[in-house]
Formats: sequence, C-alpha cells, structure tokens
Amino acid sequence: MSFLNNIKIAVIGGGSWATALIKILCEQNNVQIRWWLRNQRDIEHIRKFHHNPSYLSDVVLSPKKIKVFEKTTEAVRGADYVILAVPAAFVQEALRDLSGKHLQGKRIVSAIKGMVPDQNMLITDWISKEFGIDLHETCVIAGPCHAEEVALEKQSYLSIASTECPSAEDFAKLMTCRYVTANPLDDLYGVEYAAVMKNIIALACGITHGLGYGDNFQAVLVSNAMQEIGNFVTALDPRERNMSSSAYLGDLLVTAYSQFSRNRLFGNMIGRGYSVKAAQLEMKMIAEGYYATKSITEMNKIHHVSLPITNAVYRILYEEQAPGMVMDELKKLLK
Amino acid sequence: MSFLNNIKIAVIGGGSWATALIKILCEQNNVQIRWWLRNQRDIEHIRKFHHNPSYLSDVVLSPKKIKVFEKTTEAVRGADYVILAVPAAFVQEALRDLSGKHLQGKRIVSAIKGMVPDQNMLITDWISKEFGIDLHETCVIAGPCHAEEVALEKQSYLSIASTECPSAEDFAKLMTCRYVTANPLDDLYGVEYAAVMKNIIALACGITHGLGYGDNFQAVLVSNAMQEIGNFVTALDPRERNMSSSAYLGDLLVTAYSQFSRNRLFGNMIGRGYSVKAAQLEMKMIAEGYYATKSITEMNKIHHVSLPITNAVYRILYEEQAPGMVMDELKKLLK
Repeated sequence: MSFLNNIKIAVIGGGSWATALIKILCEQNNVQIRWWLRNQRDIEHIRKFHHNPSYLSDVVLSPKKIKVFEKTTEAVRGADYVILAVPAAFVQEALRDLSGKHLQGKRIVSAIKGMVPDQNMLITDWISKEFGIDLHETCVIAGPCHAEEVALEKQSYLSIASTECPSAEDFAKLMTCRYVTANPLDDLYGVEYAAVMKNIIALACGITHGLGYGDNFQAVLVSNAMQEIGNFVTALDPRERNMSSSAYLGDLLVTAYSQFSRNRLFGNMIGRGYSVKAAQLEMKMIAEGYYATKSITEMNKIHHVSLPITNAVYRILYEEQAPGMVMDELKKLLK
Repeated sequence: MSFLNNIKIAVIGGGSWATALIKILCEQNNVQIRWWLRNQRDIEHIRKFHHNPSYLSDVVLSPKKIKVFEKTTEAVRGADYVILAVPAAFVQEALRDLSGKHLQGKRIVSAIKGMVPDQNMLITDWISKEFGIDLHETCVIAGPCHAEEVALEKQSYLSIASTECPSAEDFAKLMTCRYVTANPLDDLYGVEYAAVMKNIIALACGITHGLGYGDNFQAVLVSNAMQEIGNFVTALDPRERNMSSSAYLGDLLVTAYSQFSRNRLFGNMIGRGYSVKAAQLEMKMIAEGYYATKSITEMNKIHHVSLPITNAVYRILYEEQAPGMVMDELKKLLK
C-alpha cells in the first residue's frame, strides 16, 4: 500500500480521545496517521501489538495506516493536519519541541476541551499566537461524543468548528464514517468556550448528585447552565447562536448526564466529601473542568458575566468552602 | 382547626402526580384539600390510614388538611382552585358529572401532561370550550419534576404558566415550599405544548436506548428535539421564548433522562421488541407520550412543521414499522 497520495494526519496525544479519533480517521481509505504519544511503553506496545494498552484497548490500530513516533517534530513532518489531543494542562509541555516552522502550512485541529493554564487562553488562540498560525487555519472538534462509545461503534455525532464553514467542511468529511457524522460550523469561539464550560457544569452536576440532589434538580441545573454558557459566549463573541444545537446543548448533555464523564465523577467525589487532592489521586484521568473553573473565573474578572454555577464550583474547589453550603446558596439563584 | 379562612383546593385524580401535588400544598398552613379519587378502595384506605395505597404510599396525607370525596361535584364545591391531575386519556370521563356551573368562578389548574384524545386539544383549551371558562382563569403546572422526588423531598422546581404572569403568581406561591420553588410564566400554550411533546421525545429516547444506541446519540436526539419542540410551539403560538429555560428544556431533560420516566420505560420496551399492546400490559401507568404522538401528528396535518422525531415515533407506534429501520432513517436526519 502506498502512502503517496494519502492525507497525512499527525495526532499529538495518547489518551482515550486521541485513540478514538484515530479509530474514526482509519475508517477512511486514504489517510496516514502519524501518532505521537508521551509514554514509551505505550509506543512499544502499539508497535508490537497494535492496541493502545492504556486506553480503549479493544481498538485495533492497524500499522498499515498508523505510524507511531517518539518525537513530535517527527510526527508532524509532512502532515496536512495536526490534531492536538492532550489534556489542556499538558499542551505546553507536549508541544515544547515544536516551533512555528514545524506547523506552518498545516491545519491545526484542537481536540482539547480546556484552556491553556495560567494564560487563560483558548487552545486555538494560543496556537495562533505561539506558533504564528492564522486563526483561519485552526479548527476544533467538539462533541457530543464520548470516546468509549466510539470504541463501541455506537452512532455518534461530532461538531467541527472553524472561523468559516468551508475550512471546517474538509475536516468534517475526514471525521465522518459508518458510525460517526461530523457536522461543520463557523463558530470557532462559541463551540470552543461551550466545550470548556460544559466540564464545569458536569462538575456541578456531580457535586450536587454526590450531595443527594436528584434528577429534578439536575434538570434545572443544566437548563440554567445553558443560559450561563450562552451569556458568557455572547459576552465574548456576540452573534446569533442556536444554543439548542448539538454542538452546545448536546455537548453539555453528554458530559453532564453520562456515566462515562470523568468531570461528573470527579464532582461526585467532591460532593461525597473527598478533598480535591484525594479525588485527583483516585482518578487516573485529569478532570478538565477543574482547570477550566479557574480559567473561566479569572477571565470573567474582566467580563463580569453572571456565572452563578461556575462561581459555586470555584468556591468549592479553590476556596475550600463546604459543598453543601455553597449548593444551598446556589439553589436559591436557580429557576 | 377552622377551615373558614382557608384556601380550598379541589384535586381531581388519585395518581402519583396528584399525590405529590397534595403533599406540596399541605406544606402551607392555610389550605384545605378536597380530593376526588376514582378508586373506592383507595378512598377508604386514605380515610382510614392517611396514605395513598397505590401511589407514593410513604407520603402522609393528614386528615386535618385533606378531605376525600367520591363525587367530583362534591370535591369542587366551594373550591377556589380545581387541579386536574388525571391521565389525559381519562379527563373527559373523570369530569363527566361536572358542568360549567360547577366550575364557574374557580381557577382551573391543569397538571395533565397530555391532550384531550380525539379532539387533539390542549387541556386548558378544552376546559375553556367545554365549561365556558375564560382561558385567563386557567393555568398549567409543568416540571421539571418527578413525583417520586417530591415524595423524597428532594429540591424541585415547578413552572406555573398562565396567559398572564399575575394569574400564575398566586398559584406559584401556593406551590412553593421548603423543597419546591414554583416559578410563574406567562406562556400558557408554549409550556403546555412543550410538556406534551416532551413525552414523545422520552419515548424516542427509550426506543433508541432499547435498540442499543448510547449516550452520544441521546444527546443529539435531545438537542434536535429541543429544536423540534421550539419550531412546533412557534408555529402554533409565535413569540420570543428562551427554550433553554427550565419550563421547556428542564422539563424535557427530566423526562428524557430519568429512570423514573414511564414514557422512557415504555419506549425502551418497544425498542427491545415488545409490541405496543405487550408494553402497555406490562406497565401499570399510562405512558402519556403514546397518545400525545397521535394528537401532535394529527394537529400537524394542518401546520406542516418538520417533526422528524415525532414522525418516527408515530410510524413505530401506530404504523407498526420496525423500530430499528425507522431509527436508522431518523439518525440520518439529525445533526
């Protein structure tokens, strides 16, 4: 099989989401995946056994379509697309060996659902600034989609957002297969901020569930959250948006309601009385919402949008206020 | 204890929702409940033991505040409010002994989440036409709220909708207590249609779950449903609505996602291969969505709104088309 006319896609990151995206891409005939993982043991395992030993280990990773690399500089070489799929907290570290010249002329796709720590910047904004990439050359992959259900080939939908629709369309075609429909959108910032904020809401859902609140309350919490997300996104990038569409509401629902959601699980532990430290130790995966809560709260010091749910989660996670008391106050603000 | 200055509230219906509403109302000091139930055995049990033997049987039904009646004409006598809380399919039968003179001057509150069968009319419209009651004198109670969580005194929110906000405000105050916050709205039709349609969507969620679709798909289904509901409601009663608020989105979420939802359960059985008849026999309670699907489909013959989800459910329930095939077609229409 020749790789000559193939579309070359570098994937940076070795977690479940990266693995799921690679599975989807490999449904295409004409792609070659250039995959960078941090963990040397995982790299060797994938080369030898064609499975990721750490995440979604049922998924077959065919060597006909996938090459695995130790260095990001090697992985991105000659790539048409570079997909970033590491936790937001590690993005700076993961891309440390790359400079603008490595990424020039490539389409940069963020599959990261968080913000760059300390800088409180969206991933696409940071990529654009740090590597001198035109924002039009970036796009984001948003849900509603759990990696675990992609592995099971359950019918899923993705939202591919760029500054303009045509840029998203090409990549959406690559991400569409038998069990995935990817839809292009021209709302880069809206989709990216909503994807970040949904993890904060999932934490709130987990915390209240852990405290003993029920389904009735969660329905109201999520409805209020949609308005909170809508207000924040509108303040940062005003335009008409149908917030009920899958890219916003759907993405929130899958995170807030699913048993697969690690943010909800993390919140649940906090609600049940775990300290932040203890909950983090229990979980192998990073709960992106933990960092997102800090980033959005700090950004909002400029924008002053009313964010009662985010504020409640911040007080619990960063100011060590008692979850029961904070949620007791929050429930009076909801309607 | 004197009943002299009390607010008298007749409640028509003996199910779990009626029982939950009575529990909430009894949190007020100054109410007297005049309760009609169809089942003579239940009436006697409540009189003797102060619990409803058939639904939410943990709830204490104090005889200090509650009188039970065999006849609707007796129950509504002298009542300030009449709450209708029977399944929509039985509303005509339940009110058969009442005429306009029995209901004149009373506020009529519909807690029914369905439409009048064969007539394809909203409950409030039908009450208004059938009993000559001004539509302004009616209101509806919508969720998001499962009766089971009210029984557990879990924090819940209700939406009380009338044609004008002040009419809803009085009743909302009566429905607010330690664990329930009731919010008034001035969108009678919007809230009532959304409450009807959510049960159709819950059926769709149940059917697809029964067929093996996962959380990713359900998030997209619910997002598309919000748009379907929004489009239908706008066609019938055009105005600005925040569809993300609890009365619309929240009400749908609690029905589509909760284990307590009988519509979801009914759909699940259909998805797993039960016939409609077999599923109905298995369930003690009526799945309102079954009738709503027919009413909305027939109404829409005039309005021609695009209702792909309702249409899919109709084909499965009323045209005996295979659920797998119908949902396979539906999934291509979603995004």
